[in-house]
Order: sequence, then structure tokens, then C-alpha cells
Amino acid sequence: MSHASPVSPLAPKTTPDVGPVAGVRFATAEAGIRYKGRTDVLLVEMDEGTSVAGVFTRSKCPSAPVEWCRDNLAGGRARALVVNSGNANAFTGQKGREATALTAKIAARALGCAEGEIFLASTGVIGEPLDATKYDGVLEETATRLAPLPWIDPARAIMTTDTFPKLATASATIDGVKVRIAGIAKGAGMIAPDMATMLSFVFTDAAIAAPALQALLSRGVVDSFNAVTVDGDTSTSDTLMMFATGAAGAPMVADPKDARLAGFRRALKGVLADLAEQVARDGEGARKLVKIHVTGAVSKRSARRIAMSIANSPLVKTAVAGEDANWGRIVMAVGKAGEPAERDLLTISFGDIRVAHKGARDPDYDEAETSAYMKNEVIDITVDIGLGRGSDRVMTCDLTKEYIAINGDYRS
Amino acid sequence: MSHASPVSPLAPKTTPDVGPVAGVRFATAEAGIRYKGRTDVLLVEMDEGTSVAGVFTRSKCPSAPVEWCRDNLAGGRARALVVNSGNANAFTGQKGREATALTAKIAARALGCAEGEIFLASTGVIGEPLDATKYDGVLEETATRLAPLPWIDPARAIMTTDTFPKLATASATIDGVKVRIAGIAKGAGMIAPDMATMLSFVFTDAAIAAPALQALLSRGVVDSFNAVTVDGDTSTSDTLMMFATGAAGAPMVADPKDARLAGFRRALKGVLADLAEQVARDGEGARKLVKIHVTGAVSKRSARRIAMSIANSPLVKTAVAGEDANWGRIVMAVGKAGEPAERDLLTISFGDIRVAHKGARDPDYDEAETSAYMKNEVIDITVDIGLGRGSDRVMTCDLTKEYIAINGDYRS
Repeated sequence: MSHASPVSPLAPKTTPDVGPVAGVRFATAEAGIRYKGRTDVLLVEMDEGTSVAGVFTRSKCPSAPVEWCRDNLAGGRARALVVNSGNANAFTGQKGREATALTAKIAARALGCAEGEIFLASTGVIGEPLDATKYDGVLEETATRLAPLPWIDPARAIMTTDTFPKLATASATIDGVKVRIAGIAKGAGMIAPDMATMLSFVFTDAAIAAPALQALLSRGVVDSFNAVTVDGDTSTSDTLMMFATGAAGAPMVADPKDARLAGFRRALKGVLADLAEQVARDGEGARKLVKIHVTGAVSKRSARRIAMSIANSPLVKTAVAGEDANWGRIVMAVGKAGEPAERDLLTISFGDIRVAHKGARDPDYDEAETSAYMKNEVIDITVDIGLGRGSDRVMTCDLTKEYIAINGDYRS
Repeated sequence: MSHASPVSPLAPKTTPDVGPVAGVRFATAEAGIRYKGRTDVLLVEMDEGTSVAGVFTRSKCPSAPVEWCRDNLAGGRARALVVNSGNANAFTGQKGREATALTAKIAARALGCAEGEIFLASTGVIGEPLDATKYDGVLEETATRLAPLPWIDPARAIMTTDTFPKLATASATIDGVKVRIAGIAKGAGMIAPDMATMLSFVFTDAAIAAPALQALLSRGVVDSFNAVTVDGDTSTSDTLMMFATGAAGAPMVADPKDARLAGFRRALKGVLADLAEQVARDGEGARKLVKIHVTGAVSKRSARRIAMSIANSPLVKTAVAGEDANWGRIVMAVGKAGEPAERDLLTISFGDIRVAHKGARDPDYDEAETSAYMKNEVIDITVDIGLGRGSDRVMTCDLTKEYIAINGDYRS
């Protein structure tokens, strides 16, 4: 933790003004999980009857809190969320399961609810037992300070090496009743010795039944968080959860395809996309945001794989860091994706500048113009495969020496 | 090309003394393909009746020379190999095919053989047409200087940003007759704007029919070159070819499983493993060689995928660069491989030090001892999955700021 990184140059210029979400109150505290004298726990309380949905890491070695949440998701009900930093409670075996059970027990007692309605997330060091007895007394005290504002507090409480707090908000009407959505996220963070972990929590006062909420969230994640990569590494703890309190007074909706949800679906999509882009903008060491558009693939799935092959290529990412419109490396990354592609049909553009067309360098492409484009903070790379109608877009950031410094240099 | 990198600290301490391989002669020249005043072409002539085998990039966008070689491999016969640096002749469309045809025509005329017996490889800039007329006269003159020694010349001629020439040799007896194997390789090289390209050529004076040679090579590559990764990026031009002149006078062998080949198979395996390790030792910016051993997986294929997931993880590679025995990142990489694995069965060791066992930190592991181990130049990481009997080993190098500098900084 020797790095006090300056705020990412890609940080949004303003922090959104997020209003209260009816039925949601929160407070933060210092539990001393790993370090003394810093906020390391977030407690969020939600009204009775809140429904819950979640999407978690695909890792075969998930953390204990991820397993806890997966187990409790079946109940469909949530009363509280407890998030800590400093310890990921991952690869901690039986002790890890005991720690999640104890955390939930203390939180349930503090709020007077069932343990199965408590959801948990942890980020921090891996493999160290989490001493959940530290929550004893702390969560009770925290529960006396719950308030609906300001949202910047929970956004800050879950940061690790994030250089800015990530918030997004939107509203919609359901059957004429206004509902609000508020979301927070943390991105690539590190507490030595640890790894990048993505956590995001979205709250709404709409009334949506748990299975419908899960369908909306599972669909929403595909083109938002699942379309972002910083380094291709998957955390043991990645967690996106959504809570719907129903406290806005809108009618309960049980079908995710209900026409009354049209505006809500759009609003949710916007919040998830906003948060996901903020995660990419705060990638460790990032100096440039890179949007990779693939068109003309044989399917969306194929386009996604090609786009991810480009987005995860260290050679492409270092070229962007060097402000080099290195389309040869794009060809390489398309070639290694293992998806249908033919060299002689490829078209590659940086921004609006077509640099390669039909299997060869575009004779009209202007090196000076391209070099000027690469100095931008946001770089759009478009690859047309020329085979079909499948398209997709993913986001990543460049790979800089600062990434190495953050992840490799702290043993001085 | 602004980097004159010092020799990798991982370079072998001595260069092997490689003797002549009967039936193989070579010379190098300056054809001015991209730069003036440097050796950029290698011509190797082989005796009539030489059989040939090859293994090439799996890229869907292979270079024109790769396509040329694939086409001619069916003939099974080789008389010459022409390798150039400075231009990869990749993503060059119809012009690229014309350039390979013209190169082969000039070489065939110079040596008095058929164009279908000429094999080609190129490394360098992508997307620029290769002006093969530059070979006119050059290859004829080069053909007048062919000699069986010294092997350091061809090894140096194919280097780009390699920091040391890569050679390996071995001998064996076939039916009592001594045969020799000599191999050269180039690793992660870059000629701006370009990418890593692996080229390797192995020569023997044994007499082995082309289909048998192909079987030996295809089998040999699995645990040598295919088990090495520098950055997970696959070149459009990766090429490994093997030539058997038959000039040692050993009997012709047509069955790759022939018992008389037992010693030869071992010798070939040694040469391929040696060259592959040298490529890993010269990974761009490498300061440490990392050997990743996976045991207890459900199959060798599963073990390979898990090992590659670890070897290609930027977080694991930066941790090794930082001399940090960060087994949490190993857990992460096992988890993201998508292969059968259970957290509570995993055992992880650095060298002989067991740091994690059965899903949790090993209580006996000594942090100071582990930190001392991580200062070594060669790091062995062993992961036991605890599920089956599949095992595998791959090699990689650490990820340092110098990698970023080599691949991102040259636009000053």
C-alpha cells in the first residue's frame, strides 16, 4: 500500500448528485479488519420485503462471501448488505464459512432480521482468516447512525486502490409512479498481497419480484460489467447485487418483460453502463479509455470473443499506452481469437481513420492524422470482420508502467 | 528500434558448440529489406532428398510465408530455407503472395532447384509490402558463400530484439550410425510497429521420411514451444520447421515409432526443450524465468489450461517481478481457468515451500524463507489440484516495466 495514486486522468469531471432511494439507509464504520484508523465496513439496511438479485464471479475458487450470497439468493429477500475492505475472506476454507456465518449473525442481531436476509461482500487480502468478532458491537453502533444520504459515503467506503468513488443514478416511472435507481461500484483495487476485485451494488425503490429482478440484472450485466476488462484476470470475489425495496409505492411487477418496465429497463441499463465505464476509467495505471467495436462477425458471441482478444492483448494495450496506432497488433489479436475471420476481409479503423482495408494497409491512411488521434484520452478501435452481422463493443484501458508499479513494486 | 537492450540476465552462461550437420550449408547477407547496413537474410541450402516438417501459428490471419510453407509441406521435400527480418510479409494480401512467389523463384534459380522445395519465413513490420526484387542478385551471391559452420551466424541473422542468439544441439545413433541435430530459434522480437514472433529451425542429418518427421515434430512441440508463453499473444508468423538431410548415412526410417529412433526422439526432445526455454529466458523485459507445474488435474489437457491461465495472468507475472510469493493471485488464476478445481483441495508451493494447503494458508509457512526464495532467477510454482492424475508444466517469464517500455515507449 505504498502508492497514493493521483486521481485517474480519466475520472469523470463531476460526481453525480444521487438522491435518496426510498427504503435504503446506510452508514460506514471502522472495524479494524486489517488497518486501524480507516473506514473499512459499510452497512446498508433495506425495508422489509426488499427483493434481491445477484451476479457473481465465474471463478471456480470463489470467496466465502460469494458462496454465502449465492446460497441466500434463493430466498429472494434482503434486509441488509455488509461490505468490508482489508480482507477478501477468500481461500479461507472452513474458517471462512464460519466468518460469514458470524458476520451475518451479528448483523441480523443489530437489525432484528433473519440471517438469511443478510448479504455480504469482502475485498482485500486473500488467504488470511477474517476475524468477524471485530464486528461485535461495531455493527450495532453503526445501525444507530443509518441515513439515506449522502451516497458518496458508501461509494468511498468500498474503495481500495480506486482513485475516485464511482456512483451513478437514474429514475424512471412505473405505471406513473417515479422510482429511483442508485448504484455504486469499486474497480481494480489492491491491498497487498491481493488482486483486482470488482464490487457493485445497485438499489431501487421500485417493487420488482426477485426472479424478475434477477432476469433484469443478468441481462443488464452482459453489455456493461461483462464487457469491461482491465487485465483479463477474474477475481475470486467479483460481485454485482441489486436490491429493490418497493418503497416508492409503484405497483409490484413480476414479469421482467412487463411493458410498464420499459423506462426502468432503459434507466437500469444506463446506470450499469455508467458504473462499468467508470471501472474501466479507473483501471490500474490507466491513462486512456479504449472502446473496441467489432462488426461483421458471424455472431454477437463471436464478436465479443474477438473484441475481448483485442482488449486483453498486452501488445495492443501497450501500443495504445505508447500512442501508437499499431493495427498489426490488432490483426494479431483477431487472428488469435480462434473465431471465424479472414485476413483479406478485415477493415480496421482508429476513430474515423481507416488504416487497413481488405487484408492490407489502406493506401489513403495518413500517419500524421492517426498519430494525432492517438493522443486522445478516449480511443475508439473498430474492426469489421466482413463475414456476418454479429457486432459487439467492449471497454478496456491501456497497459502502462504504472500497472506494473501498482501490482509488482510494493515489496520495496 | 530505439532499444539497445542489454543481454537478458537469464541468458545461458555459455553458447553451445554446435558442429556441422551433414548436408546443411548456410550463409547470411544484407538485402536491405527495411534497414541498410545490417544482416537481414539467411539462406540455408540442404542436400537433395531432404525431408521437411513444419508446425505453424494457429492464427486465423497467418502471414504469406506461413501460407507458402503450408502449401509446400505436402511435397515433403526441401532444398532451401530463406528467412528475412525487417518485414513480416503479413496482412499484405495479394502483394504478399506475389512476394513469396518471387522470393522462391529467385532462390530456386540461385540453387538450381524447384520452387516447391523452397521454404520461407519472415519477421518484422506487418502490413507493409515486402519488395522481393531486393533478393535479385543477393541470393545468387549468397549461394556462393555457403558453408556448414559457424552456427552462430544463422542464429544471429534471425534475431530481432532478442538479446542473445539461441542455439541447441544433440546427437544420437540410429542403427549404430551417429546423427546430429542442430536448432536455432528467435523469440519475442519487435521491429516497430510489430509484435513478438517466434521462429525456430531444426536440422538433422538423419534420414527420416517426411510423414514420420512431421509426426516427431508435432509431438515434440507440445511440451516445448507450445508450453512457453511470454505474453499470451500469438504472432501471425510463428514457425517451427525441421529438415532431415539423410547425409549422415543412417538408414531411412519411415515410422515415427520405429525402435531405432528411441535415442533420436530423446535428443530431439532435448533440443526443442532447450530452444523453447531460451525463448522464455529472452522474453521481452524478463528478469525471472517461471516454471509452472500443475499436478492432480483431471487430465493433462486440463492441467495445461490451468498452467497457462497462471502463466498468462498479468497479476501473477507482476507479483513475480515484485518478488512477491503472492499465492492469492495463483488461486485467482486457477479459478478463472474454467477447469475442474476445488478451492478446498488446492495445494500451492513456491520452490519447496508449501504456502497453501487444502483451501487455506499453510500454517507452517515461513514468510521470510519465501521472500528469500523469490529473489532467485528461476522460480518454480507448483499447484496441486487434488482431483486426478493429470499434470503438465509450462514456462513463462515475469512482467516488468521493461516489457511496457519495449512495446509501448518507442514513439518518443
